[in-house]
Amino acid sequence: MTVKTYLILNGPNLDRLGKREPALYGTATLADLQKRLEKTAAGLGVGVAFAQYNGEGEMIDAIHSVADKYDGCVINAAAYTHYSVAIRDAIASVDKPFVEVHLTNVFAREEFRARSVIAPVCRGSVSGFGFLSYELALRALANE
Amino acid sequence: MTVKTYLILNGPNLDRLGKREPALYGTATLADLQKRLEKTAAGLGVGVAFAQYNGEGEMIDAIHSVADKYDGCVINAAAYTHYSVAIRDAIASVDKPFVEVHLTNVFAREEFRARSVIAPVCRGSVSGFGFLSYELALRALANE
Amino acid sequence: MTVKTYLILNGPNLDRLGKREPALYGTATLADLQKRLEKTAAGLGVGVAFAQYNGEGEMIDAIHSVADKYDGCVINAAAYTHYSVAIRDAIASVDKPFVEVHLTNVFAREEFRARSVIAPVCRGSVSGFGFLSYELALRALANE
Amino acid sequence: MTVKTYLILNGPNLDRLGKREPALYGTATLADLQKRLEKTAAGLGVGVAFAQYNGEGEMIDAIHSVADKYDGCVINAAAYTHYSVAIRDAIASVDKPFVEVHLTNVFAREEFRARSVIAPVCRGSVSGFGFLSYELALRALANE
Amino acid sequence: MTVKTYLILNGPNLDRLGKREPALYGTATLADLQKRLEKTAAGLGVGVAFAQYNGEGEMIDAIHSVADKYDGCVINAAAYTHYSVAIRDAIASVDKPFVEVHLTNVFAREEFRARSVIAPVCRGSVSGFGFLSYELALRALANE
Amino acid sequence: MTVKTYLILNGPNLDRLGKREPALYGTATLADLQKRLEKTAAGLGVGVAFAQYNGEGEMIDAIHSVADKYDGCVINAAAYTHYSVAIRDAIASVDKPFVEVHLTNVFAREEFRARSVIAPVCRGSVSGFGFLSYELALRALANE
Amino acid sequence: MTVKTYLILNGPNLDRLGKREPALYGTATLADLQKRLEKTAAGLGVGVAFAQYNGEGEMIDAIHSVADKYDGCVINAAAYTHYSVAIRDAIASVDKPFVEVHLTNVFAREEFRARSVIAPVCRGSVSGFGFLSYELALRALANE
Amino acid sequence: MTVKTYLILNGPNLDRLGKREPALYGTATLADLQKRLEKTAAGLGVGVAFAQYNGEGEMIDAIHSVADKYDGCVINAAAYTHYSVAIRDAIASVDKPFVEVHLTNVFAREEFRARSVIAPVCRGSVSGFGFLSYELALRALANE
Amino acid sequence: MTVKTYLILNGPNLDRLGKREPALYGTATLADLQKRLEKTAAGLGVGVAFAQYNGEGEMIDAIHSVADKYDGCVINAAAYTHYSVAIRDAIASVDKPFVEVHLTNVFAREEFRARSVIAPVCRGSVSGFGFLSYELALRALANE
Amino acid sequence: MTVKTYLILNGPNLDRLGKREPALYGTATLADLQKRLEKTAAGLGVGVAFAQYNGEGEMIDAIHSVADKYDGCVINAAAYTHYSVAIRDAIASVDKPFVEVHLTNVFAREEFRARSVIAPVCRGSVSGFGFLSYELALRALANE
Amino acid sequence: MTVKTYLILNGPNLDRLGKREPALYGTATLADLQKRLEKTAAGLGVGVAFAQYNGEGEMIDAIHSVADKYDGCVINAAAYTHYSVAIRDAIASVDKPFVEVHLTNVFAREEFRARSVIAPVCRGSVSGFGFLSYELALRALANE
Amino acid sequence: MTVKTYLILNGPNLDRLGKREPALYGTATLADLQKRLEKTAAGLGVGVAFAQYNGEGEMIDAIHSVADKYDGCVINAAAYTHYSVAIRDAIASVDKPFVEVHLTNVFAREEFRARSVIAPVCRGSVSGFGFLSYELALRALANE
Repeated sequence: MTVKTYLILNGPNLDRLGKREPALYGTATLADLQKRLEKTAAGLGVGVAFAQYNGEGEMIDAIHSVADKYDGCVINAAAYTHYSVAIRDAIASVDKPFVEVHLTNVFAREEFRARSVIAPVCRGSVSGFGFLSYELALRALANE
Repeated sequence: MTVKTYLILNGPNLDRLGKREPALYGTATLADLQKRLEKTAAGLGVGVAFAQYNGEGEMIDAIHSVADKYDGCVINAAAYTHYSVAIRDAIASVDKPFVEVHLTNVFAREEFRARSVIAPVCRGSVSGFGFLSYELALRALANE
Repeated sequence: MTVKTYLILNGPNLDRLGKREPALYGTATLADLQKRLEKTAAGLGVGVAFAQYNGEGEMIDAIHSVADKYDGCVINAAAYTHYSVAIRDAIASVDKPFVEVHLTNVFAREEFRARSVIAPVCRGSVSGFGFLSYELALRALANE
Repeated sequence: MTVKTYLILNGPNLDRLGKREPALYGTATLADLQKRLEKTAAGLGVGVAFAQYNGEGEMIDAIHSVADKYDGCVINAAAYTHYSVAIRDAIASVDKPFVEVHLTNVFAREEFRARSVIAPVCRGSVSGFGFLSYELALRALANE
Repeated sequence: MTVKTYLILNGPNLDRLGKREPALYGTATLADLQKRLEKTAAGLGVGVAFAQYNGEGEMIDAIHSVADKYDGCVINAAAYTHYSVAIRDAIASVDKPFVEVHLTNVFAREEFRARSVIAPVCRGSVSGFGFLSYELALRALANE
Repeated sequence: MTVKTYLILNGPNLDRLGKREPALYGTATLADLQKRLEKTAAGLGVGVAFAQYNGEGEMIDAIHSVADKYDGCVINAAAYTHYSVAIRDAIASVDKPFVEVHLTNVFAREEFRARSVIAPVCRGSVSGFGFLSYELALRALANE
Repeated sequence: MTVKTYLILNGPNLDRLGKREPALYGTATLADLQKRLEKTAAGLGVGVAFAQYNGEGEMIDAIHSVADKYDGCVINAAAYTHYSVAIRDAIASVDKPFVEVHLTNVFAREEFRARSVIAPVCRGSVSGFGFLSYELALRALANE
Repeated sequence: MTVKTYLILNGPNLDRLGKREPALYGTATLADLQKRLEKTAAGLGVGVAFAQYNGEGEMIDAIHSVADKYDGCVINAAAYTHYSVAIRDAIASVDKPFVEVHLTNVFAREEFRARSVIAPVCRGSVSGFGFLSYELALRALANE
Repeated sequence: MTVKTYLILNGPNLDRLGKREPALYGTATLADLQKRLEKTAAGLGVGVAFAQYNGEGEMIDAIHSVADKYDGCVINAAAYTHYSVAIRDAIASVDKPFVEVHLTNVFAREEFRARSVIAPVCRGSVSGFGFLSYELALRALANE
Repeated sequence: MTVKTYLILNGPNLDRLGKREPALYGTATLADLQKRLEKTAAGLGVGVAFAQYNGEGEMIDAIHSVADKYDGCVINAAAYTHYSVAIRDAIASVDKPFVEVHLTNVFAREEFRARSVIAPVCRGSVSGFGFLSYELALRALANE
Repeated sequence: MTVKTYLILNGPNLDRLGKREPALYGTATLADLQKRLEKTAAGLGVGVAFAQYNGEGEMIDAIHSVADKYDGCVINAAAYTHYSVAIRDAIASVDKPFVEVHLTNVFAREEFRARSVIAPVCRGSVSGFGFLSYELALRALANE
Repeated sequence: MTVKTYLILNGPNLDRLGKREPALYGTATLADLQKRLEKTAAGLGVGVAFAQYNGEGEMIDAIHSVADKYDGCVINAAAYTHYSVAIRDAIASVDKPFVEVHLTNVFAREEFRARSVIAPVCRGSVSGFGFLSYELALRALANE
């Protein structure tokens, strides 16, 4: 029996995590997140791959790769969440479960962040819990 | 050391769970959800109380009760999610963490369900995973 | 063979009928409406139950009761017609026919009354004929 | 004493009734509706005339004819319901009661069908009951 | 000569006054407000009754009671101010003067609080002065 | 030298003038307007032709006829003013001056009448002066 | 018998007439307009006074002066037409007829010019005919 | 084997083609278009019928005729494209393929032309290529 | 100890008070209001200055004068209430309390009057009580 | 004489063609489309180059390449059609004809797909005919 | 050769500079700005005149004066930026270059400040750099 | 002491400068701009680096590079200005000053260009002066 593997896909500006306003966001970086999720994955008996891209095109390529290489995807599309119909269509074109995550409660911020164009094509969504958002999303995927 | 206890608060029409369109929603009822959450809570070493109300006023009373009697609240405000400013203000008046949950991915349904007026006053939000949404929310609270 | 029975459900402020602006609305009360409908029901060979609530929660409880106790429902949701998604969801959760009624032609009044959020989950709608609106709605239900 | 006579006025595309998607709409035609309404009218002791037009101008002419030749009008303005201010003004110019009818619950369909521009100048409105919508409307007129 | 008596009616979450963010709102409670208003009323030679409800239905019942038992009403509808058409209709159904009050300048807060649906059916409105808002409103009523 | 001739073109429901709400609109009919304009035209040394149509298609045909048969047109498009892009395009397709008229001050009535889709393709517009609106418009055309 | 006198009131930037884009607007100035209107007035047997102000306050003062000193007013509110509720209220406060004029067909220009806030409080409106707009408006006033 | 025949249906103002602004639109007329399409049809081995109407009602009648007499329809609804829900419903009532065409790229013009209400009920749409738009549309139909 | 003095500042058209529609507004003038407020001020042990301007610039100058010469301001900005961002900024630039007043319940009138742009920079607001609105506002200021 | 060559440019997610929901979209791939278009091009005596990119920047580079290397471009911008002003500006910066294509009738899908931001800078548009859309577009280009 | 001279025109409330919230805005006044700009002008070999008005009418008069007396204008219209169509029209009526300036980045503040109605008639715009905004604007003018 | 260096960052389609509509935009290219800015920078005693990208992702990478390698950034985000929340977030994540520039007065063009989503996270903005816009922006940065 093969182990299920999930892609943890991060969008634009998340590579700045830990370097940006540390008083507010803490000093933990994307690398820290990766380590923490690998541990969580091990506990759940699943595998995780990890990626971050600033470009919309690279995000779409990565989403397409889920079709053949992964069993699902945890996606933090960051700012693209609010307007990238191209990313929405990419998710819709892949027959695997996607779960939307956000570090903060984006729906509580500026008006233009109150709408997710990718939510309708995701299985579910978890937001507001920092790194824990990713862990809960992974748990939801592993539970399918 | 006292055990932390959380209120699992359900809004209008959730008492119809299991009796309504079983082909679509399954036959599991609110009582089943309660049992499942009590087990999850035990595993996490926390306690849970469980309530369901159809009335906006009763929902508000229950939210107020969190201030003195609970350590936080998992709230599925159902249809009130989209327009009850009164419930929003109730949550804002209580200095305990609230987590918004939804059985389905409400943001993928009718346009008028795409906006949550309570999201801005909750710690975070989990939607789309059925009963699992509640379990993940409880885990997030227990993790604080 | 059992006789079909329908719930005639009235929403907020309809208890003020006959006491309020009698020059405009006439002096007939909700009790008068009840008598008239019982007579109409008798003529149609069906039974009617009668209820009025000001609270959204009580309205929802009554709607749920249709699932087990009635063959359908004539509902005048009054002001809730225009914003209560909770009442809409309650109707949608019950597998019996609902018919929306209004004493006046609500669609000819203020802009905010021109939209009914419950119409999409009702079988049909009758408005503008005073008490006769209810009679026609009952006739439509009895005709199913 | 003269018998009251009402015009049953049908708008664009209703001549396609029965020929169009019979699995959905049934095979009954406008002629069948006419027969059924003549029988209903006889039972109510009133007369009915029957007309159908695709053109906005012909609809307006027919509405004007109500002023001198009929005691009221049951109007299914079909698609014109949603934008014909000219038909609205025609109805407003005639001092006889008009009742709006629809075969289906139009307010439950596409967003652009959720608004009736003629409702504010009609006595009342009946929708959602197929041919029965017309019968109930006729009954309301005969009851005046 | 009978003394005029006014109902001081408070809406959802106002029972939390004094317990909630005391650094911001102070430690004065609804009971303190009641005492202060009774003293003001005495000075004006009028009587006051005092009530608070979280439920929309209870608010409506209380408003109806003004018709027979009071000479007018000072109403702080709190969050219901912004969307409860049912409360608006309740006030409109009672032939006594109502004055809208708010502790804070609600019109200076979030966009969705900038509109009062009850203002059009009230005699006037006072907002922004804390407990003094109520005293000024009572004075306005006593002055009629 | 040939005498200039103008078409006075009237839209839907204007044939009801004088028969409709005489207390409000007076008892003068379209025929009276025609007589009055013929006298005005004689005084200005120009000719007038007169037409009224309820149908959008007939209005368009008449507008096209201005290209070859008239020196300009006074048009009261009535309700079509507010939505008939087809009439707008018809006017734009004819290289003669058109002047928009209205008996009443339409811009002071319902919101949906505050916008004229034909104004941008007319030379100018006169509204609010009853029959005098037409006379002033004719004078403007004769003045070119 | 006293002669009727009307105020011809011009708003902001109209003092630039003739100096501004002469190729487009011609070289006629406000003084030329005044001469032409005085001649027209003489022909109609009425008097005219003439004023132009750039300031909203001065416009309002001039409008108030109509109450005691004139029999009506031809007003070209220029840019204020589209937003000055203060000028609208000034007109409404004076019990004399006002007629709105515009040199060009303002309703055919930018979107934000398509709405006149003063139209609802004027007797009528004439636009698009250059100086002739004023003459027709004066004729309409003299005709009352 | 019978030859397939298609209706080429033209809407309001297209009869003005060639007479209107020839410098811009050229001098080719609707008759020229007809000749060109007959030649194209011959080349494709299909037949074409040709019609033009200014009235909405006549357009609807012609659309209905497609049900029994043609194998499909190329429709240039001109201005009706943007608001005629009646024409949309007519197309939807006929179980034959319709293709929307436009001479110019209508979506690049005024805002109110950017939306086609008939597009959702057509098989496809071709715009911007003058007469060639019709030829390509015919080719698409012949290809089915 | 110096006596506190407040500016009572009135905006456009309030100089017409008492001369305008006396049947509706009564015959009391701004001078009467001044007398009444001077008496109220005396009773409260404070001083009042009184001003009225039609111009936006003069209103702003007066607001600036509050910074150095007064202890606060009761402002009825009349029509400017709904659009003058310049007056809003003027109030914000002065570090003294301002209270917004209105004679009538402006929020119950036309849609464009339902929003106050100055409310967010005022301490509070009183509307709907005629001259009493000013007295209550003054009392609120004196109470600070 | 050189042969004209056109770029067939495909946007995001079109590389998933044939792999995605084959029951719905069929099993033909982008490679199949390329073969079919090469055959069509040969028949028309023109050449075609073929490209597909998921990234907005790559799309823009390809569009720029049309300026020097091609005689025109058939562009299916996919999801970017609805929001990429950058792609619109890229097309506008190149002085060669572009034709917009879509496999399906995009204007008949979700509301946010009803608007094309690139249409105003394209020569024309063809949608709804699957691969045939591309062929018709190529024919239109070859016809210039 | 005459020296070029520019008007530095300041709008409402800018006379409060330095007196208002000094902790935030600093203690520099409009007089300080004038001195600094005179020095900058000398360095650029141009002259500057300086003005500030709170009234819309005075602003318009000053803008008109640019036509005959200055070679261009640096304008900070302050709050009028967002709604004064009259000031926009004044600028458009003068054939000299205007440059819009703002001390702060106004487009980053409240929603209602995000739009400048005068931008479309100015040569360019500089905002966000305090007094330096004016210097850069002057440099741009001197550079023409 | 190290010399301050700024990144001059150009967005999509700016590589087409000089090749595109030279009659309108002139023949100066991006390389010319670079030379001119290097000269300006030398005069100001600062250094400049220069970059242009069509892709959103590359733009974001370049913005991130400002954090470690530059003292600030002059950014012309071109079309991305109006919708790229990702670029906005990138700027916000870097603690260095950014100044927005545009060659033309973008706010005077199409409606969809009237809003800058990056303005709120920039220090200031300069638009409308061609290459001079960049020079002024650089001067503003050098002045910090």
